[in-house]
Amino acid sequence: MSSLPEPLPEPAVDEIQLEQVFAALSDPLRMEIVRRLLLESDAFDHTCGWFGFDRPKSTLTHHFKVLREAGVTRQRQYGLERRSQVRVDDLDRRFPGLLELVKAS
Amino acid sequence: MSSLPEPLPEPAVDEIQLEQVFAALSDPLRMEIVRRLLLESDAFDHTCGWFGFDRPKSTLTHHFKVLREAGVTRQRQYGLERRSQVRVDDLDRRFPGLLELVKAS
Repeated sequence: MSSLPEPLPEPAVDEIQLEQVFAALSDPLRMEIVRRLLLESDAFDHTCGWFGFDRPKSTLTHHFKVLREAGVTRQRQYGLERRSQVRVDDLDRRFPGLLELVKAS
Repeated sequence: MSSLPEPLPEPAVDEIQLEQVFAALSDPLRMEIVRRLLLESDAFDHTCGWFGFDRPKSTLTHHFKVLREAGVTRQRQYGLERRSQVRVDDLDRRFPGLLELVKAS
C-alpha cells in the first residue's frame, strides 16, 4: 500500500461553513472544477492541468486554494504538483444533497 | 380578494442560476434573512424592518436586492415599503433540497 502525501491545510469536517461553501461555488470556473471532479472521476486526485483550462496557472492555483480552504476539496502535494479531489463523504455528511445539486446544475 | 402589487424585476424560474444563488447565500447576513423568512414565516411578505437588524437601511436595501436579483426572494412594493418572501416553490423546483440545507444550517 502506497502512502499518500498529507493533505494541505483544510477545515475539519465540523468546521465547514455553508456560507463559505456557497462562496466557493459562486464562481462559474470553480463550480465547473467541482462538477468535473464529481462527474468524470472522484476516485483519484487530479492536477489542475487535467482540466485543460486556458487560464494562467496562478489563477487556477487561486481557485483551487479557495475550494480547499472552504472545505470543498482536499489537496495533496506530489512533488511540484498539487492534486485535488472533492471531499464527497465530508460534504454528504455535513450538507446532504448539496453535491447532487452541483452535479445536476 | 385583494390584489398584490406586481413583483419587482426578478429572473424567471428557468433563468435562476445556481452559481448566482450560491453567491447570494454566501453572505452571512443574507443567509440569515433567508433562513428567518423560511423558519419564522414564509406565508407573507416582510419588510426589512421586521428583521430588526442594526444596519443602515441602505445596506439592507442592497442585500435584499441581491437576493431578489439572484431569484432567491420576491419583492413587492407597498407604497414606500418593499416586502420580501422566499420563492419557495420556484427554488424547490429548480434546486430540490437547497432550502432544506439553508434551514438546517
